[in-house]
Amino acid sequence: MTLAEAEALDRADPLAPLRERFTLPEGVIYLDGNSLGALPKSAAARLQKVVGEEWGRDLITSWNKHDWIDLPRRVGDRIAPLIGAPPGTVVVSDSISINIFKLLAAALDTGSGPGLILTEAGDFPTDGYVAQGLASLAGHEHLSGDFHELLSGSVRRLSGSVTDVSRPPVTAMSRRPVVVLVTEVNYRTGIRHDMRELVRRAHDAGATVVTDLCHSAGALPVDVTATDTDFAVGCGYKYLNGGPGAPSFAYVAPRHLPGLRQPLSGWMGHAAPFDFSPDYRPAEGIDALRVGTPPILSMSALDAALDAFDGIDLAAVKAKADALFELFVADLPSGVELLTPRDPTCRGTQVSLRHPEAYAVMQALIARGVIGDFRQPDIMRFGLTPLYLRFVDVWRATEILRDIIETAAWDRPEFKRRAKVV
Amino acid sequence: MTLAEAEALDRADPLAPLRERFTLPEGVIYLDGNSLGALPKSAAARLQKVVGEEWGRDLITSWNKHDWIDLPRRVGDRIAPLIGAPPGTVVVSDSISINIFKLLAAALDTGSGPGLILTEAGDFPTDGYVAQGLASLAGHEHLSGDFHELLSGSVRRLSGSVTDVSRPPVTAMSRRPVVVLVTEVNYRTGIRHDMRELVRRAHDAGATVVTDLCHSAGALPVDVTATDTDFAVGCGYKYLNGGPGAPSFAYVAPRHLPGLRQPLSGWMGHAAPFDFSPDYRPAEGIDALRVGTPPILSMSALDAALDAFDGIDLAAVKAKADALFELFVADLPSGVELLTPRDPTCRGTQVSLRHPEAYAVMQALIARGVIGDFRQPDIMRFGLTPLYLRFVDVWRATEILRDIIETAAWDRPEFKRRAKVV
Repeated sequence: MTLAEAEALDRADPLAPLRERFTLPEGVIYLDGNSLGALPKSAAARLQKVVGEEWGRDLITSWNKHDWIDLPRRVGDRIAPLIGAPPGTVVVSDSISINIFKLLAAALDTGSGPGLILTEAGDFPTDGYVAQGLASLAGHEHLSGDFHELLSGSVRRLSGSVTDVSRPPVTAMSRRPVVVLVTEVNYRTGIRHDMRELVRRAHDAGATVVTDLCHSAGALPVDVTATDTDFAVGCGYKYLNGGPGAPSFAYVAPRHLPGLRQPLSGWMGHAAPFDFSPDYRPAEGIDALRVGTPPILSMSALDAALDAFDGIDLAAVKAKADALFELFVADLPSGVELLTPRDPTCRGTQVSLRHPEAYAVMQALIARGVIGDFRQPDIMRFGLTPLYLRFVDVWRATEILRDIIETAAWDRPEFKRRAKVV
Repeated sequence: MTLAEAEALDRADPLAPLRERFTLPEGVIYLDGNSLGALPKSAAARLQKVVGEEWGRDLITSWNKHDWIDLPRRVGDRIAPLIGAPPGTVVVSDSISINIFKLLAAALDTGSGPGLILTEAGDFPTDGYVAQGLASLAGHEHLSGDFHELLSGSVRRLSGSVTDVSRPPVTAMSRRPVVVLVTEVNYRTGIRHDMRELVRRAHDAGATVVTDLCHSAGALPVDVTATDTDFAVGCGYKYLNGGPGAPSFAYVAPRHLPGLRQPLSGWMGHAAPFDFSPDYRPAEGIDALRVGTPPILSMSALDAALDAFDGIDLAAVKAKADALFELFVADLPSGVELLTPRDPTCRGTQVSLRHPEAYAVMQALIARGVIGDFRQPDIMRFGLTPLYLRFVDVWRATEILRDIIETAAWDRPEFKRRAKVV
């Protein structure tokens, strides 16, 4: 493809005007929206208002006057349609890790004693770490490995940190509660699970499913209802553009809302927090996932960031991401290996490339204004975020990548020096 | 005291210039800094920079370039001197409730099996709620009552939600780990514990102590080292003025740092988070309390808010708060009862008044620009925050309070209608 052809695609792109909803730096091609979404103008404006008018002027009265108190629920209800959830099933609260803890515990709170937590070995490590922490504290067992093998195969064939290979497979363990934690789109490879099939198999085995939507919510059409997902968690700061470390969201299927309980029983999850009664009584419904006083500044930024999705069809977003993907991978330089599937139904919206000097190549790219990121041990990730990326951006990025690879421009000591955050 | 005398006190007040560090609304006397601190100008400026330059312009590179990654630790090290803690013992992360969960669990992680959690019945409810949640999940026992009676008295005499009155007192339970969670300054009454004596008694009984500093950190001189406190948690949004729902801080005594473990094992608490290794290995030291990706916007506001404490002696802050207290209570209208001790060593920096129509009186006060808050069932709280309060403010507030009480101006339906947040 020529630059002129990429420009023509931009002119024909119905999503092109969305870029105006964001503030983007000059001279940068930003391909890391899968790690930190760009700044929506609406978020900057809202923060100024929240700080000046709500905090500064109205002070404590803002809990009522600006309804800060229900912000976690209101923002949840704005995220709900992006993931196919009905109103009242999503709340924003705490970090992803902490929401995973809550949801795994809620899924295992069946009154049947200790349970089993299954996690995918290749998922983002915090998922497994949190499962380990909960299992150790509450006496559950935790197994990590390939999801499909975990559910029905021989445990002996499992890779990863399986604690006891002599244990029978899950299908024979119907007496204790089993929860499966699985990420829809893998953070390293961009590979996407068929969630409908995966949830069905888990349910057939008597397990409930907590889906990690960190790399799918806001990137592509997600439908927790159609896939019959039990619980889900997602990220506020990647594709939702809520700002660095934005709070996370959690979804609970309507059938699990009655009697929903989780062990981080802070006062905002109480049925009547301002009664100040001595005993914890969980709120009815999704509010039972709330814990402490909500971080209004960060949460307001996320709320306003969602304005960028107003009137947008996520199927069109995914379609443009797929077109950007095709452009990106059409003519990859030799020496890089494409990890992400070419079948669009089997991937999210990132491009993952393998190269022996991936870290240095990425630093060389960044030095030339193309920002992606590196993942251990040899992976370069490029996020394709159609709300603010143009075809010409991707066209230029691939030109620069090719030049860096072909001229070995990455082979300099300053590009090999590891930074604190890689 | 006359208005002229109050004005003279302001002219002589060495802390008076600090008010310039804050943005305060016109026509309001803000006596609720114990619930939400006023807006420091430094916080507003910093947020604008973080949004525009760090998030908007430098995007993902800010994790290294602006050292976002160590912000939780850096802000912790700025809070440390306010509570008498050495560097490297304080970290900012998550909400107060979640930090309580972590610290209680860390205190009970002794390898000696299930433990006992003691909480004070009159403390802010989230403390007891979190203890209940942890106890239920991990098989610990939880007792709530009067701290001194819990530690050494007869359990039969305990008030509150004691689960088993036949159980022997703590001093006879030396074989299992015991942790005491106690708030230095009570949120309702403003009564302050003698923490040195309390910790000593707890240690004598073989218990460790988690101190809740929500109503003392930033309000008065706190010294976790001198009091030999084991663990502490505090609030970012009250006396530290970090903004609504600002993240909380947690302190761990140096002797407990080696081997520190807590069950919310998210990736940012890992010894090497960017290695993406499958098994959780806690960071050495205070970083083991970190969990998920830090909320940079909220945490940056807290960081900048701490500028307001630059060059300030907290003993002088408490001394001014005591003088404001004396002015407030010197001539209370009849019908209101002072709950807060007159002995300055036995209280924090709030005034708590009891009145049968406390809710309506508070609404009448707010309608006339005097903002305090109400606590169940009949308490009005007024926070005395010397960084931005003048003697004339308190003088005017007491005049208005007297007028409202003496004319029964509170006796109107609109003042009795309860809002969502009370």
